Amino acid sequence: MCSYAVNKRAVVLLSGGLDSATALAMAKAQGYACYALSVSYGQRHIAELNAAKRVAQQLGAIEHRIVDVDMRAIGGSALTDDIAVPEHEADEPLESGIPVTYVPARNTIMLSVALGCAEVLGAQAIFAGVNAVDYSGYPDCRPQYISAFQTMANLATKAGVEGDTIAIETPLIDLTKADIIRQGLALGVDYGQTVSCYQANAEGKACGRCDSCRIRQAGFSEAGVDDPTQYLATDEKNT
Amino acid sequence: MCSYAVNKRAVVLLSGGLDSATALAMAKAQGYACYALSVSYGQRHIAELNAAKRVAQQLGAIEHRIVDVDMRAIGGSALTDDIAVPEHEADEPLESGIPVTYVPARNTIMLSVALGCAEVLGAQAIFAGVNAVDYSGYPDCRPQYISAFQTMANLATKAGVEGDTIAIETPLIDLTKADIIRQGLALGVDYGQTVSCYQANAEGKACGRCDSCRIRQAGFSEAGVDDPTQYLATDEKNT
Repeated sequence: MCSYAVNKRAVVLLSGGLDSATALAMAKAQGYACYALSVSYGQRHIAELNAAKRVAQQLGAIEHRIVDVDMRAIGGSALTDDIAVPEHEADEPLESGIPVTYVPARNTIMLSVALGCAEVLGAQAIFAGVNAVDYSGYPDCRPQYISAFQTMANLATKAGVEGDTIAIETPLIDLTKADIIRQGLALGVDYGQTVSCYQANAEGKACGRCDSCRIRQAGFSEAGVDDPTQYLATDEKNT
Repeated sequence: MCSYAVNKRAVVLLSGGLDSATALAMAKAQGYACYALSVSYGQRHIAELNAAKRVAQQLGAIEHRIVDVDMRAIGGSALTDDIAVPEHEADEPLESGIPVTYVPARNTIMLSVALGCAEVLGAQAIFAGVNAVDYSGYPDCRPQYISAFQTMANLATKAGVEGDTIAIETPLIDLTKADIIRQGLALGVDYGQTVSCYQANAEGKACGRCDSCRIRQAGFSEAGVDDPTQYLATDEKNT
């Protein structure tokens, strides 16, 4: 038995979506005892948090902690405010630039909460399913941002003062959605448990028309894998 | 009329304590329209938030926004957990090292929330009453930490992508408590409205025995100014 492996701990940010589920599976495959962390930030639907609970259990996380951060009080995003989530036909291109679904400082806030948890747990790493390929419009998904967060985090904590660091791990950052899906399937992720849709209904059924649904659909298609997502029928209300 | 001055906006982190009240007065003196922001993080008492409300009003903030962040779910501090706040006699030295009142990642989380608000408001600056002199035990009160946060923030936001930056201003960082008090009084801060005590009662009366009270008392003494703090009588319960 290797006691080092048993003591290696990671906080894994888990949204309930495809990317963070894969990041959790990767952290586990690297031998970390995984502490799943969801930040409840005033999402329009509880479907994401329910998905995160299922994924944490399916992938054997030690715990699933939910920290409430009222990002609605910050505002400025279609995901937390009364701004409509853009919908498109399947053959329309994605919009360029920073989308209205961008939540100001969301990744910074979520990584900061993870940093606090990692410090308390004595964790060596934080895993986040940040991806720069499909989310090139989000400033806080870029590698140079993650690198700057790491530098700041090294100075922010007790661990840093004592010469230890908490590594910010973003194993998906350069992967395409198809590659993420392939690697996740190889690690046993059940993507039928995950919810990516920006406006899923309470049961986790997806709209199939928002940017997140479209990126996800294209990923399954490119990976040549059946898409296990449950989509709303066209006559179902998104409630 | 100078339209630039009218349009210059700052988010000011306001805890209700002496330092952040002074930072707000300084931001205002620099011509900023000030948006006061308190992060309600599971403080033991509501006295701090009540003090912040009074201070925001007294110093003419445009608004006072309270964002809930459940730092109790992170744990690890005497300020959010069931860990006793250390008390000392007035003539005992302060303990060295990182105190148990340190809240893991607190400044990082609060600055991150301020960053989101600043982005939504189109603010040019964030003011925080961070001080490295009296709080040398806190890793996230050091100038090198603030500098690293600035670098990260420049990469985290839409503003950063578009070439603008949101300046992280910490005008108290190198000041002694006595200097902070002198400068704040010159700018009209009513320190009787502020609460610094780590375990103030619901009315904001201070214990006089925690590190924060002792640093504050010494500051008023060194500045040669009457201490307007309301202290609990020795026979009063801290409820």
